[in-house]
Amino acid sequence: MQRILSAELPARVGEKVTIAGWIHRRRLLKSVAFLIVRDAAGFAQVVIAEPELQAAVAAMTEETVVEVVGTVVANDTAPAGVEVVEATVRVLASAEPSPFDLYRPKLTVTLPTLLDYAAVALRHPLRQVAFRMSAAAVHGFRATLDAAGFVEVHTPKIVASATESGANVFALDYFGRPAYLAQSPQFYKQTLVGVFERVYEVGPVFRAEPHDTVRHLAQYTSLDVELGFISDHREVMAVLRETLTGMIAAVASRAPEAVAAHGIVLPEVPAEIPALHFADALAMVGSAMGEDLTGEPDLAPAHERWLGEWALREHGSDFLFVVGYPMAKRPFYTHPDPSRPGYSNGFDLIFRGIELVTGGQRLHRYHDYLEALAARGESPAAYESYLDVFRHGMPPHGGFAIGLERFMMRLLDVGNVREVTLFPRDLNRLTP
Amino acid sequence: MQRILSAELPARVGEKVTIAGWIHRRRLLKSVAFLIVRDAAGFAQVVIAEPELQAAVAAMTEETVVEVVGTVVANDTAPAGVEVVEATVRVLASAEPSPFDLYRPKLTVTLPTLLDYAAVALRHPLRQVAFRMSAAAVHGFRATLDAAGFVEVHTPKIVASATESGANVFALDYFGRPAYLAQSPQFYKQTLVGVFERVYEVGPVFRAEPHDTVRHLAQYTSLDVELGFISDHREVMAVLRETLTGMIAAVASRAPEAVAAHGIVLPEVPAEIPALHFADALAMVGSAMGEDLTGEPDLAPAHERWLGEWALREHGSDFLFVVGYPMAKRPFYTHPDPSRPGYSNGFDLIFRGIELVTGGQRLHRYHDYLEALAARGESPAAYESYLDVFRHGMPPHGGFAIGLERFMMRLLDVGNVREVTLFPRDLNRLTP
Repeated sequence: MQRILSAELPARVGEKVTIAGWIHRRRLLKSVAFLIVRDAAGFAQVVIAEPELQAAVAAMTEETVVEVVGTVVANDTAPAGVEVVEATVRVLASAEPSPFDLYRPKLTVTLPTLLDYAAVALRHPLRQVAFRMSAAAVHGFRATLDAAGFVEVHTPKIVASATESGANVFALDYFGRPAYLAQSPQFYKQTLVGVFERVYEVGPVFRAEPHDTVRHLAQYTSLDVELGFISDHREVMAVLRETLTGMIAAVASRAPEAVAAHGIVLPEVPAEIPALHFADALAMVGSAMGEDLTGEPDLAPAHERWLGEWALREHGSDFLFVVGYPMAKRPFYTHPDPSRPGYSNGFDLIFRGIELVTGGQRLHRYHDYLEALAARGESPAAYESYLDVFRHGMPPHGGFAIGLERFMMRLLDVGNVREVTLFPRDLNRLTP
Repeated sequence: MQRILSAELPARVGEKVTIAGWIHRRRLLKSVAFLIVRDAAGFAQVVIAEPELQAAVAAMTEETVVEVVGTVVANDTAPAGVEVVEATVRVLASAEPSPFDLYRPKLTVTLPTLLDYAAVALRHPLRQVAFRMSAAAVHGFRATLDAAGFVEVHTPKIVASATESGANVFALDYFGRPAYLAQSPQFYKQTLVGVFERVYEVGPVFRAEPHDTVRHLAQYTSLDVELGFISDHREVMAVLRETLTGMIAAVASRAPEAVAAHGIVLPEVPAEIPALHFADALAMVGSAMGEDLTGEPDLAPAHERWLGEWALREHGSDFLFVVGYPMAKRPFYTHPDPSRPGYSNGFDLIFRGIELVTGGQRLHRYHDYLEALAARGESPAAYESYLDVFRHGMPPHGGFAIGLERFMMRLLDVGNVREVTLFPRDLNRLTP
């Protein structure tokens, strides 16, 4: 008999069915035993009246994988108003005692334990739905960009030289030659603007982060976007706004149970996201926090938090653009602001007080690249293969990258990015 | 004025418009010049009558990026029945002479040249559309699996031990510890069947292939699928059949111009893909080719070609399942065929005479894994983190992996997988 999922039971009252899943919890009473069976769709209650089967079930552990054949009956007091009676239970795989009780509403173990036993901990309903939410967000990302004429690409993760700087790269032995893991698909997505005009990539990026922080990982999922034939960075910001709107809408429509289970309120993306120039943001923060920030080239995390609160208070927005970061702190491919020397056409998007997205307009002319590198005292030799692209006609372009795990971290309001990563990689963690 | 794409021109006859793109070709006649401008949507013909502008255009190279403002007029002899007249041309970025003529119907350069100059070669219309086709196939892959309740996941690409064997892995310095690039997400997708029941991943996998062949890459895009609560491998084969159908349908609907430009016939996936047991396939091939293949544990490429021809001849099918490969040649996690000792519940899918997909049912009980490793004389210590998963209750499960580039290679009938890879990585190639 074809197995059905627990969610289908209410429509099958009176029928004999097969369900299968994990024993989520057993309740062994004097004359009857209840099994709560967990499957991909939720839970099913199984009533066991037969003494021999009660004894068998009493000897099973939670997380045993079982197949249950029985009859569906209505019972107002059971979950979803139905239960399975006159059941037979077949063990598909036994389980050792779990390191923690998955049936409790929350996992109250430490993060290292959660990560050491990821294969089990991820089965907890709250953790499961968080990752369904993450998949929904990525679906929304792709759907929005597909509809806007973007082409999805897959680029090399093993590269001959570090993408943006020599620091924080993983070195690799590539058939006897030195190579590196890509810190971002930056150069490739720019190159491919010369081919498809608009591209995106969803893929892993690698950072040999020497610090153990709550928001850095050695591997994370980057949602990368790049588009050509723009006037300036504002067109990039408009695409980012559309993309975020699509991502959040997809979470709402494709993972409503996750949103409900976590009791969270999804942010609304304003029709126009408030935007501050970097210089104005710095002045506001400095004055409000009583700090002299004159000449500071970047915002500190505390400043971003203050700006996030300001955007919510003044504009009712969870999002804030900070535009025009100083050239000094942006990568060499950043396009300067033609009207304001020293500042760039680069932006950050702050989401609930944390930097979520970095983006901007890039240089697109070959000689501008040579000048930018010369001004920084860097040799073009290290970037030869990349620079060659700009000899062959590249349109004005720009783009951005969203860190998926960081986005989920803020959406779910958890304190550590590892909580929203299936199997995190960091300074100390290489397994599971 | 907002830029429009070339495809929008026929609807704008009589209007003044802005288009932008690359100079694909110039035709300089005595009294008039024609510019063919290429953009993401196709081509636009621009007529230049003004002598001064003719001289300017004559000095430009192909691949110069231009913005053209002009008036759309109907002209039956022009491409798409329209052209742009009374034009002004603004150069957005100049271009050095291209290493080859992109305007020719086919790029007649050697593969190494094509790959060395990938940033330019990929702009060739035929190469462009092949990658749009690839993106469409991946879209179909995801859409089919999303509809069937699969969850998309992202798993670690840096791992503590080699996935399937010690050979062909890239070694890495991970914060002073040895680590490896993942050869496949095999262990993680199995682990996640214990969480979501059905999962898929689209991501890079890494093989340190020491041989330089037409069908191997050091990095390729693997479309990985794994599902739980199966009876045996036949349910996995059914999902694979659905997935391929979805992929090919998406290519037809989302990239029809690519299919037309390449003049290819998309394969039809039969309602039931013909299937042969490995032993029968071997006997047939041996008899037909006059070879004694008794006891052979695997099929050679020539055998696969013969079987592909047989499937087409006898069943009118481009696809053929070969089922029940000998245990000896399959990885240790392979589930044996309970009714036929020495053979497995593993299969390959042959597409037009080449192995495209490998899949099968996996072991799911902890002690079965210990026995399987012991029988091969392997120590369980190397797989500790993976094996632990099976202590906690894993359902019967199986899955498969499709190599995206290899699929495109056969679909487009090209001789080398590098032709359908944006920026290939192999024994000799680490750039661009």
